[in-house]
Amino acid sequence: MNKLNIVGIGPGAREYLTLNAVETIEKSDVLVGSKRSLELFDYLDAQMVVLEPRDIPNTVKKAVSYLDDGLNVSVLSTGDPGFSGMLKTIQRLSPNTKLNVIPGISSVQLASAKVEIPWDSANLITIHGGKAPTKDLLDKIDNNVPNIILPNRHISELAEYLIDNGFSPEHGITICEKLSYPDEQVVHVTLEEAKQMDFGYMCVVVV
Amino acid sequence: MNKLNIVGIGPGAREYLTLNAVETIEKSDVLVGSKRSLELFDYLDAQMVVLEPRDIPNTVKKAVSYLDDGLNVSVLSTGDPGFSGMLKTIQRLSPNTKLNVIPGISSVQLASAKVEIPWDSANLITIHGGKAPTKDLLDKIDNNVPNIILPNRHISELAEYLIDNGFSPEHGITICEKLSYPDEQVVHVTLEEAKQMDFGYMCVVVV
Repeated sequence: MNKLNIVGIGPGAREYLTLNAVETIEKSDVLVGSKRSLELFDYLDAQMVVLEPRDIPNTVKKAVSYLDDGLNVSVLSTGDPGFSGMLKTIQRLSPNTKLNVIPGISSVQLASAKVEIPWDSANLITIHGGKAPTKDLLDKIDNNVPNIILPNRHISELAEYLIDNGFSPEHGITICEKLSYPDEQVVHVTLEEAKQMDFGYMCVVVV
Repeated sequence: MNKLNIVGIGPGAREYLTLNAVETIEKSDVLVGSKRSLELFDYLDAQMVVLEPRDIPNTVKKAVSYLDDGLNVSVLSTGDPGFSGMLKTIQRLSPNTKLNVIPGISSVQLASAKVEIPWDSANLITIHGGKAPTKDLLDKIDNNVPNIILPNRHISELAEYLIDNGFSPEHGITICEKLSYPDEQVVHVTLEEAKQMDFGYMCVVVV
């Protein structure tokens, strides 16, 4: 039987796809992914299944049933499937499905490249789920090295939480927003300034 | 003036190049990289400068002098320039050179994909320099999570060191050798078995 492809598609723009990702996706009968991910491949004839954040279990079930029908199925995972991506989700929801995992460029790697901080000496933190920042974040932050954070909520809330928990309002924070998109921006401000600013959800933060 | 491109070319095979890496390299007048890296682009007319491990400072100086001459120069970095790659090296050797860093797939990401261990819950360890394993490695290993290690020496030596420092000889180790190459292999053995085995240098290890 076919394996289920879990394909890392990078931070968003086509230019960060690997040749392997493109080839695997172009050979697929069915593509499963967020609306934004599927748009990258709207030139293909494949059947498109939109992965709604609220309905992931059913969508994964659907993907596996297409696989059982003998079709070639690729689940598109933003960034790298192994970093805050779809690998863990699918392992949990469908533990017996055989997988073919194709790595992709994570947005933390692109942030590291843009701000020129090697990530082998940084502390990478990914915050899962939709909850507000908790002590778990404080436990993970290491004040001796740069912290590259893939947050789950508004940056203003993160900045406020850090200030409320002992960080100086003058502490620097770098926000990389919409990396790889034409309107990407990299902003260096203080935590106090970040508290007042409005960023979208597609951010990586360096503290 | 042009920026110096530092381009992540992934674990080795062409299929893990990003479209951005290919495009940047194809537009370059000068390519600087290991023999193996340059071979990936032998179809290009660019001037090729071999980066010898023993002569990195002079080669970087040469690359910067081509840049000063107005040429478009790309330094090829195996894996990701930000993970045990050329970013740190060039920042140290030529701190005033303006950079354009392009991320690539690190071999730890490919290992994570092959063994299906999400690396956001793993402990990533890269051992720099050519020295034998030291206490530094023991300090970094976390027994509560998988450790994905990019070693610098023979695996047999690493296995022996771990056994000599309290790891059970029956402890499992996964060795991913020559990932992305036609003769890649993924082997699950015990530390005792790994001690007796002979692997090449292009390995990633999961303990």
